[in-house]
Amino acid sequence: MAHRVFNFNPGPSTLPLPVLETIQAELLDYRGSGMSVMELSHRSPEFEEIMDSAIALTREIFDLPESYHVLFLTGGASQQFAMIPHNFLAQGGVGVYADTGSWSAKAIRESEIVGRTHVAYSGKTGDYRRVPADDELQIPADAAYLHITTNNTIKGTQFHHTPAVNPPLIADMSSDIGSIRREFTRYAMFYAGSQKNLGPAGVTLVVLRDDLVQRSNDSLSSVLNYKTQAGKKSLYNTPPCFPIYAVKLVLEWIRDQGGLAAVEELNARKKELIYGMIDGHPEFYRGTVEPASRSWMNITLRLPDEELEQRFVAEAKQAGLVGLKGHRSVGGIRASLYNAMPLAGAQALASFMERFMARA
Amino acid sequence: MAHRVFNFNPGPSTLPLPVLETIQAELLDYRGSGMSVMELSHRSPEFEEIMDSAIALTREIFDLPESYHVLFLTGGASQQFAMIPHNFLAQGGVGVYADTGSWSAKAIRESEIVGRTHVAYSGKTGDYRRVPADDELQIPADAAYLHITTNNTIKGTQFHHTPAVNPPLIADMSSDIGSIRREFTRYAMFYAGSQKNLGPAGVTLVVLRDDLVQRSNDSLSSVLNYKTQAGKKSLYNTPPCFPIYAVKLVLEWIRDQGGLAAVEELNARKKELIYGMIDGHPEFYRGTVEPASRSWMNITLRLPDEELEQRFVAEAKQAGLVGLKGHRSVGGIRASLYNAMPLAGAQALASFMERFMARA
Repeated sequence: MAHRVFNFNPGPSTLPLPVLETIQAELLDYRGSGMSVMELSHRSPEFEEIMDSAIALTREIFDLPESYHVLFLTGGASQQFAMIPHNFLAQGGVGVYADTGSWSAKAIRESEIVGRTHVAYSGKTGDYRRVPADDELQIPADAAYLHITTNNTIKGTQFHHTPAVNPPLIADMSSDIGSIRREFTRYAMFYAGSQKNLGPAGVTLVVLRDDLVQRSNDSLSSVLNYKTQAGKKSLYNTPPCFPIYAVKLVLEWIRDQGGLAAVEELNARKKELIYGMIDGHPEFYRGTVEPASRSWMNITLRLPDEELEQRFVAEAKQAGLVGLKGHRSVGGIRASLYNAMPLAGAQALASFMERFMARA
Repeated sequence: MAHRVFNFNPGPSTLPLPVLETIQAELLDYRGSGMSVMELSHRSPEFEEIMDSAIALTREIFDLPESYHVLFLTGGASQQFAMIPHNFLAQGGVGVYADTGSWSAKAIRESEIVGRTHVAYSGKTGDYRRVPADDELQIPADAAYLHITTNNTIKGTQFHHTPAVNPPLIADMSSDIGSIRREFTRYAMFYAGSQKNLGPAGVTLVVLRDDLVQRSNDSLSSVLNYKTQAGKKSLYNTPPCFPIYAVKLVLEWIRDQGGLAAVEELNARKKELIYGMIDGHPEFYRGTVEPASRSWMNITLRLPDEELEQRFVAEAKQAGLVGLKGHRSVGGIRASLYNAMPLAGAQALASFMERFMARA
């Protein structure tokens, strides 16, 4: 029996144990091929089956019509920050962004490098403690798209609604993809780095509607061009085969649990355990964001003082609960409760919070 | 004991069995952390040690002075095809390329998208059966760089010398990196997709001199900018942690065998077994490239007719020798003998060639 901790890291993050066990079991001989999955040609029938399954599972789990392309690219969300304006601002139009924290701000900077950029809302003055309501978004008439970040890993906020706006809606869902139901067809495009809810780092899921692909800019470098990547079905060049294989296993695991509805229900129970402790003990645990914008994935909180916070992180680690230190830019505590964190992990954390408070 | 074949795939390709066994053994609990290596934060001490080791091993194996940066990026060689002209043609100057086959041709096309491009040599009229001598390279005075492809996976040719030229020399070494000694400090930059000699697909080793980094174009998107990537030591955003970990294990395996000198010696023995069969039986096995340009990594050959070639591939597979079909663009047979192919694999192939010929 392998030694395993409860891993609250914000990403790369915990993976489902059954997925890790499958990877381990078939590591030297992928299903009788006599080769590791890492040694398969990306043109082999075995790998084609992996890629096709990953695409089909994505379509099934997110209930996507045929008008959407499902791509597995590289470079993380950061490469998408660059690709989006490169592909969609060349025909004129302005890149419009809601600034809800560090990752939004990075996306905005990358758009500014490429073309005209407009910030429709900024949470900066309010220290990013909430996400905007639709009527707070100032969207110019020539918007090429509106870009949002559905979950903000560092500040701990999350969109619990889909903005109703005119321009095509593009969402960075890196840190809540597959954890919650959304009206996915109201998004013209959504994307996610794999390393939170989908698998190990190294691949980026990109889902986009065909009309966006057709808008892509033909004078772009091939790897950056959605038209090239979609036309080649993510096989323009050798893809990150192993991360895609792992993502496929994670998607199977999501489906086998009952899909997004079941996963969401479990995630609701997990976050309620922790927010329940915060709301039940406001004199000791202080949530840092407005309740309506609370993230289910990354729960941020402060303790009465920094010395207690340091003790909390250290003693939790002793108790087998790791990765609870807040992001260096905000301090405090952050508990990331991605899909693969079992209910037992959230229970263990809630119980630790109770004990820690009692003896503090 | 896992069922294992001899895997002659051109990439992704065979990996050292001890590396796969290490990955398997520590998959659920990386060295007592209680987490898989895939679950570690890329900012954790454990992953920092992996990244630092991978960089240090690269410096050691390729004997690189401090003036070189060692980066682990994503997007494969294809992304480098785009990044090179984006970074180095903005200040004027022409991108100069030796065209020695499909991959060179792709690099040239990507340069043409970005800026002024000159083909210093093209092997196309000679069906890419050899690489050029230095005096065949026509290099303009305003060359920003000369780009070569040291090994041509599809056609089966390889540079066995380093061109002596004035402009900074940039080499795509994707398919022979780490298999042979070269005068690496005569290259201003070299790079390689991981999936042939370095590990599983999903990461790209990029080695470049600091003066090239300083030439990078500041108006570029961050992920494409060598200055950003070098400044952040490949951690501008979440790197492909697992592929980097696997590459680190492969680099340790190279070092532990005695480094490039020992690996090269073994590779020489392997390729001699196969080229020996070809040269010994010219009436049956016909090498497709000029002997002085023969690749040690990808041996391309034809049989008397296509029906025999199909039988060869099928019967070899029955004998546990897989991945021998030539690239769809050239046909015939291709045996890829990357570092991780053991001598026993080359012996088994030579022996199979002997038997097949005898009964054909």
